[in-house]
Amino acid sequence: MTIKLYCFGESGNSYKAALALELSGLDWEPVFVDFFNGETRTPEYRATVNEMGEAPVLVDGDFRTSQSGAIQAYVTEKSGRFGGKTREENYDILRWVLWDNHKLSSMAGMTRFLINFLPEKHRNPDVIAFNQGRLKAAYQVLDAHLEGREWIVGDGVTNADLSCCGYLYYPEPFGFDRAEWTNIDAWLTRLSEQPGWKSPYDLMPGNPSDRA
Amino acid sequence: MTIKLYCFGESGNSYKAALALELSGLDWEPVFVDFFNGETRTPEYRATVNEMGEAPVLVDGDFRTSQSGAIQAYVTEKSGRFGGKTREENYDILRWVLWDNHKLSSMAGMTRFLINFLPEKHRNPDVIAFNQGRLKAAYQVLDAHLEGREWIVGDGVTNADLSCCGYLYYPEPFGFDRAEWTNIDAWLTRLSEQPGWKSPYDLMPGNPSDRA
Repeated sequence: MTIKLYCFGESGNSYKAALALELSGLDWEPVFVDFFNGETRTPEYRATVNEMGEAPVLVDGDFRTSQSGAIQAYVTEKSGRFGGKTREENYDILRWVLWDNHKLSSMAGMTRFLINFLPEKHRNPDVIAFNQGRLKAAYQVLDAHLEGREWIVGDGVTNADLSCCGYLYYPEPFGFDRAEWTNIDAWLTRLSEQPGWKSPYDLMPGNPSDRA
Repeated sequence: MTIKLYCFGESGNSYKAALALELSGLDWEPVFVDFFNGETRTPEYRATVNEMGEAPVLVDGDFRTSQSGAIQAYVTEKSGRFGGKTREENYDILRWVLWDNHKLSSMAGMTRFLINFLPEKHRNPDVIAFNQGRLKAAYQVLDAHLEGREWIVGDGVTNADLSCCGYLYYPEPFGFDRAEWTNIDAWLTRLSEQPGWKSPYDLMPGNPSDRA
């Protein structure tokens, strides 16, 4: 049975799940979520797809889960890919996935939304500047960690990489300049050279030109 | 060997880990992190305790991890407490822990810090108002989920509960009023009635009166 992933192109959280599915070789297909017309905020979406009102959501037969980190764990369980080789590596992957959710992707996603997708009259420059300050601290942690390393945990691609990269390949500006972060830049290039890698808008339906 | 937890009283993220340790019955002791004098930002802390520059950090002999969700997973592995009874419950716990990190505790911790611990001249009311709007959406999701349920996942306390409660017992105001959220209020009462439960400032060293 084909795994279904509720997702949309602009969502870096969806991208984390879609990229894990795609690189794992599992059979999957996207189900487009019309976020920009309010689908995730409808009572129907909350009642039948995800009470958290978010994408991505994975459905595999009777199994269903949401949150990119939980979906990635499921992909690892089902495909054997992107987990750790040792118990210690598994804890390290979990802590980087949590750090990403707490400090990196959550802030990057929100800031990119405020700058690129929210009507200009609702954009608050103070909020954007505050978030970008927090993001700079996160880039520093990740860039320092990647010094002398090819991957975030161990010697191959894991869910730690597939989580932290979630918003970093998007073309829309949100204050992240790869050229400023040498180790992050090299790591993103390395990851994008993995067989089967695709950019967010090539992997999932929906992109900003749909609303142009 | 006694487990060490690097923590400080004001940190709800530390509280999540400390509460799991305390309720599990494992032997543990706090190591005070002097966050308000900048300890987590020092090169020494980053080199020897946590490169992410955060608390909590757990050290158990040769094993070390950070991020409250990873520490809770370790407490579950070691004590057999607060995990799911089924594979589905384990995925549900993980997704609520991730949701908490992404949408609830991250925002609550930051907003409480801005309102209560940052010098007044640095407080930006727009940032606070923006965060509180995001938090209200998170309280709605949690309150709706707890309708008709005693616990977030399954029929007992799990790491989902011990994560989501992280900032909700603190006395400092940050825009969360238990009286407005009936189901969250009842759930917090239920959790605080568990044998061994302690409030954050009773469980960990350091509290605002130290700086008064």
